[in-house]
Amino acid sequence: MAEPTSTTQRLEAFSDGVIAIAITLLILEVKIPHVRAGNLAGALGDQWPSYVAYALTFVVIGIMWMNHHRVFELIARTDRGLMFVNLFMLMGIAFLPFPTALLADYVVDGGSNAQVAAAIYSATMTLIGLTFLGIWLYLERHRELLAPGVDPAIIPGSIRRTVPGPCLYGASIALAFVSPEACLVVYALLAAYFAFNWLPDWLVRNERAAD
Amino acid sequence: MAEPTSTTQRLEAFSDGVIAIAITLLILEVKIPHVRAGNLAGALGDQWPSYVAYALTFVVIGIMWMNHHRVFELIARTDRGLMFVNLFMLMGIAFLPFPTALLADYVVDGGSNAQVAAAIYSATMTLIGLTFLGIWLYLERHRELLAPGVDPAIIPGSIRRTVPGPCLYGASIALAFVSPEACLVVYALLAAYFAFNWLPDWLVRNERAAD
Amino acid sequence: MAEPTSTTQRLEAFSDGVIAIAITLLILEVKIPHVRAGNLAGALGDQWPSYVAYALTFVVIGIMWMNHHRVFELIARTDRGLMFVNLFMLMGIAFLPFPTALLADYVVDGGSNAQVAAAIYSATMTLIGLTFLGIWLYLERHRELLAPGVDPAIIPGSIRRTVPGPCLYGASIALAFVSPEACLVVYALLAAYFAFNWLPDWLVRNERAAD
Amino acid sequence: MAEPTSTTQRLEAFSDGVIAIAITLLILEVKIPHVRAGNLAGALGDQWPSYVAYALTFVVIGIMWMNHHRVFELIARTDRGLMFVNLFMLMGIAFLPFPTALLADYVVDGGSNAQVAAAIYSATMTLIGLTFLGIWLYLERHRELLAPGVDPAIIPGSIRRTVPGPCLYGASIALAFVSPEACLVVYALLAAYFAFNWLPDWLVRNERAAD
Repeated sequence: MAEPTSTTQRLEAFSDGVIAIAITLLILEVKIPHVRAGNLAGALGDQWPSYVAYALTFVVIGIMWMNHHRVFELIARTDRGLMFVNLFMLMGIAFLPFPTALLADYVVDGGSNAQVAAAIYSATMTLIGLTFLGIWLYLERHRELLAPGVDPAIIPGSIRRTVPGPCLYGASIALAFVSPEACLVVYALLAAYFAFNWLPDWLVRNERAAD
Repeated sequence: MAEPTSTTQRLEAFSDGVIAIAITLLILEVKIPHVRAGNLAGALGDQWPSYVAYALTFVVIGIMWMNHHRVFELIARTDRGLMFVNLFMLMGIAFLPFPTALLADYVVDGGSNAQVAAAIYSATMTLIGLTFLGIWLYLERHRELLAPGVDPAIIPGSIRRTVPGPCLYGASIALAFVSPEACLVVYALLAAYFAFNWLPDWLVRNERAAD
Repeated sequence: MAEPTSTTQRLEAFSDGVIAIAITLLILEVKIPHVRAGNLAGALGDQWPSYVAYALTFVVIGIMWMNHHRVFELIARTDRGLMFVNLFMLMGIAFLPFPTALLADYVVDGGSNAQVAAAIYSATMTLIGLTFLGIWLYLERHRELLAPGVDPAIIPGSIRRTVPGPCLYGASIALAFVSPEACLVVYALLAAYFAFNWLPDWLVRNERAAD
Repeated sequence: MAEPTSTTQRLEAFSDGVIAIAITLLILEVKIPHVRAGNLAGALGDQWPSYVAYALTFVVIGIMWMNHHRVFELIARTDRGLMFVNLFMLMGIAFLPFPTALLADYVVDGGSNAQVAAAIYSATMTLIGLTFLGIWLYLERHRELLAPGVDPAIIPGSIRRTVPGPCLYGASIALAFVSPEACLVVYALLAAYFAFNWLPDWLVRNERAAD
């Protein structure tokens, strides 16, 4: 009756593939300036938002991969519902090159276009955060998917730690209409928050598992 | 005399790679609007067919991956013929960014160009559906490739469930010449159909395997 | 003293990745025609060489992957030299989207440009064929890399079957300067030849292994 | 308490994916010349720096993959810090299509633009070299991550062999402002150096492990 755990392995391999490709495609949005007689150094400097957006989104996707990795270490089996929640997460992550390029192209334009670009970046991050929350909520209702030895009691704490993500990114949608450039700073702070908040949780889990 | 099962594993890994790349390349067809003094929000709104086509094809490829995964769980060995049927399926899936971009660019143009774009999308889906059917028909004639413990009696039912796909997509080729925009709705309904019709079959199989 | 066989596994995974990406990137060279008031069907029909080049190169790379798969099933260990021969093979395969797009863009132009495009396609295939030959020649001199139970006596036969590839593709360089369109037919025939010539060899090997 | 070694395996798979995609995306920067009535052969010849940059960066990324492979064979477990050092290495490698295209487009332009392009290529390589050094320095301080049976005494030697990389690439930043074309020669020499200097080290390690 139980599906084999190999199902999870191929789901992880497919997810790794999509995330690895999305993170690597980001560079295609950093454009080569075409200045024949002009000043290449100046043209490269002018597109600094491209480098910021590249580095920011690269690190954010990297952290998403780490979190995906962490969650699926706890899961032994998958079913239709979990596959679809995961598919929507991948759709959000694979979409990121688009808002990243929008942000790079428009954040320094000033005016409403910069606001729109930042708001779309924030909204995409909010939706991806909701899919991470969706995985935890799904696991809470389908505890039979957890790996043997994983204590379901870790789920409420994981949900609590996942909620701030979409809330803070959601709040940055409003901030986008105040100051798109401030959003860049907030995105960097949020990336640092997720890098340092989520991963100690990982160690916590391992210590529990070792008890 | 029997080929090792590792053959199937590397075929699955290669197929996973191609499908993961095709699904992630879709975002490259969602273009960044270039409006310097203009209205970015309006320009982004105008390309709504790009987002619909992105989401639709992303989900469809995701479901194809799930079905590919399901079929190959039943297969232990592969031979030249199965490799070629699989290669033609991958050719169809890897081709999808092209009709997806055609559909996004032309579906709201009205007139015969919209009809042509929708018909090509429908035809590509029909051909991919035929390759799925081809895998089941190939397995029916090469039952020695099935994994030990898999009852060949599941093949006729799988063929019956696979036939409607290319038939319905084939019918949507005709619909494209009536209303290209209605095709978008039909594609969404077909995706939902495959998501919910195929996968219960999976559960069915697992229950049988557990008998 | 022996390197672990895991080395081969990660080399295969890396090679699978490069080949899967190269085969999937081909679609990016099939361009969306931009006809606002014009005739989309006509514009799509005019770029028929793009579809021929796509399908041809897709099948050829698929067969290369099958052959790569076949060769590395025989190899248990890898060393620096084999890694570099494999890297040059991957460089050739990853280069293929370029001559494929050249061929698609210029083969129907007539004149010397079509000849140059076909000659470059032929030359790239010749070089990739030489790297396949290089792997077999390398294995002949480093039989200690073969998997246990693999009879080194299969190497001379494999070399004999690999030699016609670069020779025939090499001859098609000359043909390119006579008739670039005839080259398309020759490429299709060569793909069929490799599909049916190489793979029975696979079965032969398995029968020998079963003796 | 110990993290499972599967963590390293999925980190390797993700890294393999990013490196395989970056190496394969390089071909997208080799542009198809658009000469309708003109001379294709001449136009292809004029973009020789594109082929040199493609081949050079392909081989360099291939060697980076080999070195990454070699290092991670020594590591059994990973923690947050190592994941981030690895993520920054991947960010550098995935960034390489950009300086490669810059170099291809500007190295023969002469003047300060060629200098800037070569300096950026050198600087990117320097930063990637520093992340390799960072992995070894991290391992020196976290020897508990090494695989069982790996002698931590190999770390100082590995650090010594890693230091010349970023130093020599760093020196080539200065050379870029003297002769950008000489940089191409230096890059090729450095690739050869790393191909032959690093890999014997691999054999050394295996001999030690066999003692």
